[in-house]
Amino acid sequence: MNLRKISESTVRRLSLYLNLLRDMSDAGTEVVSSVDLAGGIGTTAAQVRKDLSNFGSFGKRGQGYVVEDLRASIESILGLVRPRRVALVGAGKIGSALLGYRDLRTRGFEIIVAFDIDPEKYGRKVFDVPVLPMDQLEQRLSADRIEIVILATPPAVAQEVANRVTASGVAGILSFAASKLETDATLAVRWMDVALELEGLSFLISAAGNEVEES
Amino acid sequence: MNLRKISESTVRRLSLYLNLLRDMSDAGTEVVSSVDLAGGIGTTAAQVRKDLSNFGSFGKRGQGYVVEDLRASIESILGLVRPRRVALVGAGKIGSALLGYRDLRTRGFEIIVAFDIDPEKYGRKVFDVPVLPMDQLEQRLSADRIEIVILATPPAVAQEVANRVTASGVAGILSFAASKLETDATLAVRWMDVALELEGLSFLISAAGNEVEES
Repeated sequence: MNLRKISESTVRRLSLYLNLLRDMSDAGTEVVSSVDLAGGIGTTAAQVRKDLSNFGSFGKRGQGYVVEDLRASIESILGLVRPRRVALVGAGKIGSALLGYRDLRTRGFEIIVAFDIDPEKYGRKVFDVPVLPMDQLEQRLSADRIEIVILATPPAVAQEVANRVTASGVAGILSFAASKLETDATLAVRWMDVALELEGLSFLISAAGNEVEES
Repeated sequence: MNLRKISESTVRRLSLYLNLLRDMSDAGTEVVSSVDLAGGIGTTAAQVRKDLSNFGSFGKRGQGYVVEDLRASIESILGLVRPRRVALVGAGKIGSALLGYRDLRTRGFEIIVAFDIDPEKYGRKVFDVPVLPMDQLEQRLSADRIEIVILATPPAVAQEVANRVTASGVAGILSFAASKLETDATLAVRWMDVALELEGLSFLISAAGNEVEES
Protein backbone atom coordinates (compact mmCIF):
# COMPACT_ATOMS: atom_id res chain seq x y z
CA MET A 1 0.00 0.00 0.00
CA ASN A 2 1.17 3.49 -0.80
CA LEU A 3 0.63 5.65 2.26
CA ARG A 4 1.05 8.82 0.23
CA LYS A 5 -2.14 7.95 -1.67
CA ILE A 6 -4.30 8.00 1.47
CA SER A 7 -6.78 10.88 1.16
CA GLU A 8 -6.81 13.82 3.53
CA SER A 9 -10.36 12.97 4.59
CA THR A 10 -9.35 9.42 5.51
CA VAL A 11 -6.58 10.82 7.69
CA ARG A 12 -9.06 13.23 9.30
CA ARG A 13 -11.35 10.35 10.15
CA LEU A 14 -8.40 8.42 11.65
CA SER A 15 -7.86 11.41 13.98
CA LEU A 16 -11.52 11.35 14.95
CA TYR A 17 -11.48 7.58 15.56
CA LEU A 18 -8.37 8.05 17.69
CA ASN A 19 -10.05 10.73 19.84
CA LEU A 20 -13.01 8.45 20.33
CA LEU A 21 -10.83 5.44 21.19
CA ARG A 22 -8.88 7.49 23.73
CA ASP A 23 -12.15 8.52 25.41
CA MET A 24 -13.32 4.88 25.37
CA SER A 25 -10.01 3.76 26.79
CA ASP A 26 -10.31 6.34 29.61
CA ALA A 27 -13.84 5.11 30.27
CA GLY A 28 -12.64 1.51 30.50
CA THR A 29 -14.39 0.27 27.34
CA GLU A 30 -12.57 -2.81 26.04
CA VAL A 31 -14.21 -3.63 22.71
CA VAL A 32 -15.89 -1.45 20.09
CA SER A 33 -17.84 -2.26 16.92
CA SER A 34 -17.43 -0.46 13.60
CA VAL A 35 -21.06 0.65 14.03
CA ASP A 36 -20.19 2.41 17.31
CA LEU A 37 -17.04 3.96 15.86
CA ALA A 38 -19.08 5.17 12.90
CA GLY A 39 -21.81 6.61 15.10
CA GLY A 40 -19.27 8.45 17.23
CA ILE A 41 -17.95 10.47 14.31
CA GLY A 42 -21.01 10.58 12.09
CA THR A 43 -20.01 8.20 9.31
CA THR A 44 -21.01 4.67 8.24
CA ALA A 45 -19.68 1.34 9.51
CA ALA A 46 -18.68 0.49 5.93
CA GLN A 47 -16.57 3.67 5.81
CA VAL A 48 -14.86 2.75 9.10
CA ARG A 49 -13.96 -0.70 7.75
CA LYS A 50 -12.79 0.78 4.45
CA ASP A 51 -10.63 3.40 6.20
CA LEU A 52 -8.96 0.84 8.45
CA SER A 53 -8.46 -1.70 5.65
CA ASN A 54 -6.00 0.73 4.06
CA PHE A 55 -3.60 -0.05 6.86
CA GLY A 56 -4.01 -3.77 7.48
CA SER A 57 -6.40 -6.09 9.20
CA PHE A 58 -7.90 -5.03 12.52
CA GLY A 59 -10.50 -6.66 14.70
CA LYS A 60 -12.33 -9.92 14.11
CA ARG A 61 -15.46 -10.36 12.06
CA GLY A 62 -18.46 -10.17 14.40
CA GLN A 63 -16.30 -9.41 17.44
CA GLY A 64 -15.37 -5.77 16.91
CA TYR A 65 -12.07 -4.12 17.72
CA VAL A 66 -10.05 -4.26 20.93
CA VAL A 67 -10.01 -0.57 21.96
CA GLU A 68 -6.41 -0.52 23.26
CA ASP A 69 -5.04 -2.34 20.22
CA LEU A 70 -6.84 -0.16 17.69
CA ARG A 71 -5.83 2.99 19.58
CA ALA A 72 -2.17 1.91 19.49
CA SER A 73 -2.42 0.99 15.79
CA ILE A 74 -3.90 4.35 14.80
CA GLU A 75 -1.31 6.19 16.90
CA SER A 76 1.33 4.28 15.00
CA ILE A 77 -0.26 5.03 11.60
CA LEU A 78 -0.43 8.74 12.49
CA GLY A 79 3.20 8.74 13.61
CA LEU A 80 2.24 9.46 17.22
CA VAL A 81 4.05 6.66 19.00
CA ARG A 82 6.10 9.28 20.87
CA PRO A 83 5.39 13.02 21.28
CA ARG A 84 6.19 15.14 18.22
CA ARG A 85 8.69 17.94 18.89
CA VAL A 86 7.17 21.26 17.83
CA ALA A 87 8.41 24.87 17.70
CA LEU A 88 6.30 27.99 17.35
CA VAL A 89 7.43 30.96 15.27
CA GLY A 90 5.52 34.13 16.16
CA ALA A 91 4.35 34.51 19.77
CA GLY A 92 1.62 37.08 19.06
CA LYS A 93 -2.05 36.63 19.93
CA ILE A 94 -2.68 33.39 18.07
CA GLY A 95 0.79 32.06 18.90
CA SER A 96 0.48 32.60 22.62
CA ALA A 97 -3.06 31.19 22.64
CA LEU A 98 -1.54 28.01 21.17
CA LEU A 99 1.13 27.88 23.87
CA GLY A 100 -1.66 27.75 26.44
CA TYR A 101 -3.62 25.05 24.60
CA ARG A 102 -3.17 21.97 26.81
CA ASP A 103 -4.92 19.66 24.42
CA LEU A 104 -1.88 19.74 22.12
CA ARG A 105 0.24 17.87 24.63
CA THR A 106 -2.45 15.29 25.41
CA ARG A 107 -2.76 14.66 21.69
CA GLY A 108 0.95 14.09 21.25
CA PHE A 109 2.50 17.44 20.35
CA GLU A 110 5.01 19.14 22.62
CA ILE A 111 5.86 22.76 21.93
CA ILE A 112 9.49 22.92 23.03
CA VAL A 113 10.46 26.45 22.07
CA ALA A 114 9.02 29.65 20.58
CA PHE A 115 10.57 32.48 18.57
CA ASP A 116 9.52 36.10 18.16
CA ILE A 117 10.95 39.38 16.88
CA ASP A 118 9.85 41.34 19.95
CA PRO A 119 12.84 41.78 22.35
CA GLU A 120 10.39 42.35 25.22
CA LYS A 121 9.41 38.70 24.95
CA TYR A 122 12.93 37.23 25.02
CA GLY A 123 13.94 35.24 28.03
CA ARG A 124 10.33 35.05 29.19
CA LYS A 125 8.40 31.85 29.34
CA VAL A 126 4.84 31.74 28.05
CA PHE A 127 3.03 28.75 29.58
CA ASP A 128 6.46 27.28 30.37
CA VAL A 129 7.75 27.62 26.81
CA PRO A 130 10.84 29.83 26.40
CA VAL A 131 10.59 32.63 23.82
CA LEU A 132 13.83 33.21 21.91
CA PRO A 133 15.01 35.78 19.34
CA MET A 134 14.73 34.92 15.65
CA ASP A 135 18.50 34.87 15.15
CA GLN A 136 18.63 31.67 17.21
CA LEU A 137 16.05 29.95 14.96
CA GLU A 138 18.25 27.65 12.86
CA GLN A 139 20.54 26.73 15.71
CA ARG A 140 17.73 25.81 18.10
CA LEU A 141 15.54 24.00 15.55
CA SER A 142 18.47 21.78 14.88
CA ALA A 143 19.70 21.42 18.50
CA ASP A 144 16.17 20.61 19.73
CA ARG A 145 15.55 18.24 16.76
CA ILE A 146 12.29 20.03 15.99
CA GLU A 147 10.02 18.06 13.65
CA ILE A 148 7.14 20.47 13.12
CA VAL A 149 7.07 24.27 13.07
CA ILE A 150 3.85 26.19 13.68
CA LEU A 151 4.07 29.39 11.67
CA ALA A 152 2.08 32.19 13.31
CA THR A 153 3.89 35.16 11.81
CA PRO A 154 2.41 37.98 9.73
CA PRO A 155 1.88 36.73 6.13
CA ALA A 156 4.54 39.13 4.82
CA VAL A 157 7.39 37.26 6.52
CA ALA A 158 5.94 33.73 6.35
CA GLN A 159 7.87 32.78 3.20
CA GLU A 160 11.21 33.95 4.58
CA VAL A 161 10.65 32.03 7.82
CA ALA A 162 9.51 28.95 5.87
CA ASN A 163 12.77 29.04 3.90
CA ARG A 164 14.85 29.20 7.07
CA VAL A 165 12.80 26.42 8.66
CA THR A 166 13.16 24.17 5.62
CA ALA A 167 16.91 24.69 5.59
CA SER A 168 17.01 23.58 9.25
CA GLY A 169 15.74 20.10 8.46
CA VAL A 170 12.24 20.41 9.90
CA ALA A 171 9.81 17.85 8.39
CA GLY A 172 6.53 19.79 8.49
CA ILE A 173 4.96 23.24 8.79
CA LEU A 174 1.50 24.16 10.05
CA SER A 175 0.86 27.68 8.81
CA PHE A 176 -1.60 30.20 10.20
CA ALA A 177 -0.48 32.70 7.57
CA ALA A 178 -2.96 32.52 4.70
CA SER A 179 -0.27 33.44 2.16
CA LYS A 180 0.94 30.74 -0.19
CA LEU A 181 4.32 29.20 0.58
CA GLU A 182 6.82 27.94 -1.95
CA THR A 183 8.44 24.99 -0.24
CA ASP A 184 10.48 21.94 -0.94
CA ALA A 185 8.38 18.94 -2.03
CA THR A 186 9.84 16.92 0.86
CA LEU A 187 8.35 19.31 3.43
CA ALA A 188 4.79 18.54 4.60
CA VAL A 189 2.69 21.71 4.86
CA ARG A 190 -0.82 22.24 6.22
CA TRP A 191 -2.80 25.42 6.65
CA MET A 192 -5.15 26.70 9.31
CA ASP A 193 -7.26 29.06 7.25
CA VAL A 194 -10.28 30.59 8.97
CA ALA A 195 -11.61 32.07 5.73
CA LEU A 196 -11.41 28.68 3.99
CA GLU A 197 -13.48 27.05 6.76
CA LEU A 198 -15.98 29.92 6.63
CA GLU A 199 -16.27 29.43 2.86
CA GLY A 200 -16.99 25.75 3.50
CA LEU A 201 -19.70 26.75 5.99
CA SER A 202 -21.14 29.26 3.56
CA PHE A 203 -21.40 26.52 0.93
CA LEU A 204 -23.18 24.18 3.37
CA ILE A 205 -25.64 26.91 4.32
CA SER A 206 -26.38 27.66 0.65
CA ALA A 207 -26.61 23.99 -0.32
CA ALA A 208 -29.05 23.31 2.50
CA GLY A 209 -31.16 26.28 1.43
CA ASN A 210 -30.82 27.40 5.02
CA GLU A 211 -30.21 31.10 4.47
CA VAL A 212 -31.01 33.57 7.22
CA GLU A 213 -33.67 35.84 5.77
CA GLU A 214 -32.81 39.41 4.99
CA SER A 215 -35.08 41.95 6.55
CA MET B 1 -27.51 17.53 -8.74
CA ASN B 2 -27.60 17.17 -4.97
CA LEU B 3 -25.41 19.88 -3.51
CA ARG B 4 -25.32 18.16 -0.15
CA LYS B 5 -23.41 15.27 -1.73
CA ILE B 6 -20.48 17.45 -2.77
CA SER B 7 -17.39 16.35 -0.83
CA GLU B 8 -15.59 18.59 1.61
CA SER B 9 -12.41 18.37 -0.46
CA THR B 10 -14.25 19.54 -3.59
CA VAL B 11 -15.51 22.56 -1.65
CA ARG B 12 -11.98 23.24 -0.40
CA ARG B 13 -10.69 23.23 -3.96
CA LEU B 14 -13.47 25.63 -5.00
CA SER B 15 -12.17 28.03 -2.33
CA LEU B 16 -8.65 27.69 -3.68
CA TYR B 17 -9.80 28.24 -7.29
CA LEU B 18 -11.69 31.30 -6.10
CA ASN B 19 -8.61 32.78 -4.40
CA LEU B 20 -6.63 32.19 -7.58
CA LEU B 21 -9.32 33.72 -9.81
CA ARG B 22 -9.51 36.80 -7.59
CA ASP B 23 -5.74 37.26 -7.89
CA MET B 24 -5.97 36.79 -11.67
CA SER B 25 -8.84 39.24 -11.82
CA ASP B 26 -6.78 41.81 -9.87
CA ALA B 27 -3.87 41.22 -12.25
CA GLY B 28 -6.11 41.80 -15.28
CA THR B 29 -5.99 38.23 -16.59
CA GLU B 30 -9.07 37.59 -18.73
CA VAL B 31 -8.96 33.91 -19.60
CA VAL B 32 -7.57 30.89 -17.77
CA SER B 33 -7.16 27.23 -18.73
CA SER B 34 -7.96 24.26 -16.49
CA VAL B 35 -4.24 23.45 -16.68
CA ASP B 36 -3.35 26.84 -15.17
CA LEU B 37 -6.04 26.58 -12.51
CA ALA B 38 -4.79 23.10 -11.65
CA GLY B 39 -1.16 24.24 -11.47
CA GLY B 40 -2.09 27.15 -9.19
CA ILE B 41 -3.47 24.87 -6.50
CA GLY B 42 -1.45 21.72 -7.09
CA THR B 43 -4.03 19.43 -8.66
CA THR B 44 -4.73 18.05 -12.15
CA ALA B 45 -6.66 19.67 -15.01
CA ALA B 46 -8.98 16.65 -15.01
CA GLN B 47 -9.77 17.28 -11.35
CA VAL B 48 -10.55 20.96 -12.09
CA ARG B 49 -12.96 19.96 -14.86
CA LYS B 50 -14.54 17.28 -12.68
CA ASP B 51 -14.97 19.69 -9.74
CA LEU B 52 -16.62 22.35 -11.88
CA SER B 53 -18.83 19.86 -13.76
CA ASN B 54 -20.67 19.22 -10.47
CA PHE B 55 -22.17 22.68 -10.80
CA GLY B 56 -22.89 23.11 -14.49
CA SER B 57 -21.04 23.86 -17.66
CA PHE B 58 -18.29 26.47 -17.55
CA GLY B 59 -15.85 27.60 -20.22
CA LYS B 60 -15.58 26.38 -23.78
CA ARG B 61 -13.60 23.38 -24.94
CA GLY B 62 -10.14 24.54 -26.00
CA GLN B 63 -10.82 28.13 -24.99
CA GLY B 64 -10.56 28.01 -21.22
CA TYR B 65 -12.63 29.94 -18.73
CA VAL B 66 -13.44 33.64 -18.62
CA VAL B 67 -11.86 34.67 -15.30
CA GLU B 68 -14.60 37.11 -14.25
CA ASP B 69 -17.42 34.72 -15.13
CA LEU B 70 -15.88 31.76 -13.33
CA ARG B 71 -15.08 33.92 -10.30
CA ALA B 72 -18.71 35.08 -10.11
CA SER B 73 -19.98 31.50 -10.59
CA ILE B 74 -17.84 30.10 -7.79
CA GLU B 75 -18.82 32.97 -5.50
CA SER B 76 -22.41 32.09 -6.18
CA ILE B 77 -21.83 28.35 -5.55
CA LEU B 78 -20.11 29.15 -2.24
CA GLY B 79 -22.95 31.46 -1.23
CA LEU B 80 -20.72 34.53 -1.31
CA VAL B 81 -22.71 36.82 -3.60
CA ARG B 82 -23.03 39.27 -0.71
CA PRO B 83 -20.97 39.46 2.50
CA ARG B 84 -21.93 36.88 5.14
CA ARG B 85 -22.94 38.40 8.49
CA VAL B 86 -20.79 36.92 11.26
CA ALA B 87 -20.68 37.25 15.05
CA LEU B 88 -17.86 36.24 17.37
CA VAL B 89 -18.49 34.70 20.78
CA GLY B 90 -15.41 34.91 23.01
CA ALA B 91 -13.10 37.89 22.53
CA GLY B 92 -10.04 36.32 24.16
CA LYS B 93 -6.68 35.84 22.44
CA ILE B 94 -7.84 33.86 19.44
CA GLY B 95 -11.09 35.81 19.19
CA SER B 96 -9.45 39.21 19.13
CA ALA B 97 -6.82 38.00 16.69
CA LEU B 98 -9.71 37.11 14.37
CA LEU B 99 -11.24 40.57 14.76
CA GLY B 100 -7.99 42.00 13.42
CA TYR B 101 -7.79 39.56 10.51
CA ARG B 102 -8.55 41.76 7.48
CA ASP B 103 -8.58 38.90 5.03
CA LEU B 104 -11.96 37.80 6.38
CA ARG B 105 -13.67 40.86 4.99
CA THR B 106 -11.96 40.63 1.60
CA ARG B 107 -13.09 37.05 1.38
CA GLY B 108 -16.71 37.91 2.09
CA PHE B 109 -17.20 37.62 5.85
CA GLU B 110 -18.08 40.64 7.95
CA ILE B 111 -17.80 40.32 11.72
CA ILE B 112 -20.62 42.60 12.89
CA VAL B 113 -20.54 42.08 16.64
CA ALA B 114 -18.63 40.23 19.36
CA PHE B 115 -19.67 38.88 22.78
CA ASP B 116 -17.63 38.18 25.89
CA ILE B 117 -18.16 37.48 29.59
CA ASP B 118 -15.53 40.01 30.69
CA PRO B 119 -17.24 43.30 31.77
CA GLU B 120 -13.98 45.17 31.14
CA LYS B 121 -14.47 44.53 27.43
CA TYR B 122 -18.07 45.79 27.19
CA GLY B 123 -18.68 48.95 25.25
CA ARG B 124 -15.19 48.78 23.77
CA LYS B 125 -14.54 48.22 20.12
CA VAL B 126 -11.84 45.79 19.04
CA PHE B 127 -10.79 46.57 15.46
CA ASP B 128 -14.08 48.49 15.07
CA VAL B 129 -16.23 45.60 16.26
CA PRO B 130 -18.33 46.30 19.38
CA VAL B 131 -17.97 43.83 22.27
CA LEU B 132 -21.25 43.15 24.10
CA PRO B 133 -22.22 41.17 27.20
CA MET B 134 -23.44 37.60 26.78
CA ASP B 135 -26.95 38.41 28.00
CA GLN B 136 -27.51 40.37 24.79
CA LEU B 137 -26.56 37.35 22.64
CA GLU B 138 -29.97 36.10 21.45
CA GLN B 139 -31.40 39.56 20.95
CA ARG B 140 -28.46 40.81 18.88
CA LEU B 141 -27.96 37.67 16.80
CA SER B 142 -31.53 38.01 15.74
CA ALA B 143 -31.59 41.83 15.32
CA ASP B 144 -28.36 41.77 13.29
CA ARG B 145 -29.58 38.75 11.25
CA ILE B 146 -26.32 36.93 12.00
CA GLU B 147 -25.75 33.94 9.70
CA ILE B 148 -22.55 32.47 11.12
CA VAL B 149 -21.18 32.44 14.66
CA ILE B 150 -17.49 31.93 15.34
CA LEU B 151 -17.22 30.15 18.67
CA ALA B 152 -13.97 31.04 20.45
CA THR B 153 -15.01 30.28 24.02
CA PRO B 154 -13.41 27.83 26.45
CA PRO B 155 -14.50 24.27 25.57
CA ALA B 156 -16.45 23.96 28.84
CA VAL B 157 -19.06 26.53 27.78
CA ALA B 158 -19.08 25.82 24.02
CA GLN B 159 -22.11 23.52 24.16
CA GLU B 160 -24.21 25.98 26.15
CA VAL B 161 -23.34 28.81 23.75
CA ALA B 162 -24.03 26.55 20.76
CA ASN B 163 -27.50 25.81 22.14
CA ARG B 164 -28.28 29.51 22.55
CA VAL B 165 -26.91 30.28 19.08
CA THR B 166 -28.97 27.52 17.47
CA ALA B 167 -32.13 28.77 19.16
CA SER B 168 -31.43 32.23 17.69
CA GLY B 169 -31.75 31.04 14.11
CA VAL B 170 -28.09 31.19 13.09
CA ALA B 171 -27.31 28.93 10.10
CA GLY B 172 -23.73 27.90 10.86
CA ILE B 173 -21.05 27.69 13.56
CA LEU B 174 -17.28 27.69 13.16
CA SER B 175 -15.89 26.34 16.42
CA PHE B 176 -12.40 26.84 17.81
CA ALA B 177 -13.37 24.77 20.84
CA ALA B 178 -12.14 21.22 20.25
CA SER B 179 -15.00 19.76 22.28
CA LYS B 180 -17.77 17.95 20.44
CA LEU B 181 -21.03 19.83 19.99
CA GLU B 182 -24.47 18.29 19.92
CA THR B 183 -26.37 20.42 17.46
CA ASP B 184 -29.46 20.44 15.34
CA ALA B 185 -28.98 18.66 12.01
CA THR B 186 -30.05 21.83 10.22
CA LEU B 187 -27.09 23.76 11.64
CA ALA B 188 -23.85 23.64 9.64
CA VAL B 189 -20.82 23.19 11.89
CA ARG B 190 -17.11 23.29 11.10
CA TRP B 191 -14.14 23.01 13.41
CA MET B 192 -10.77 24.76 13.52
CA ASP B 193 -8.75 22.11 15.31
CA VAL B 194 -5.01 22.68 15.54
CA ALA B 195 -4.36 19.19 16.93
CA LEU B 196 -6.28 17.62 14.02
CA GLU B 197 -4.12 19.47 11.50
CA LEU B 198 -0.97 18.51 13.41
CA GLU B 199 -2.08 14.87 13.34
CA GLY B 200 -2.51 15.18 9.56
CA LEU B 201 1.02 16.60 9.31
CA SER B 202 2.38 13.85 11.52
CA PHE B 203 0.81 11.26 9.20
CA LEU B 204 2.35 12.92 6.13
CA ILE B 205 5.77 12.98 7.78
CA SER B 206 5.51 9.29 8.73
CA ALA B 207 4.13 8.26 5.34
CA ALA B 208 6.98 10.05 3.55
CA GLY B 209 9.51 8.34 5.82
CA ASN B 210 10.75 11.84 6.52
CA GLU B 211 11.33 11.58 10.25
CA VAL B 212 13.78 13.93 11.95
CA GLU B 213 16.42 11.65 13.42
CA GLU B 214 16.63 11.26 17.13
CA SER B 215 20.04 11.97 18.56
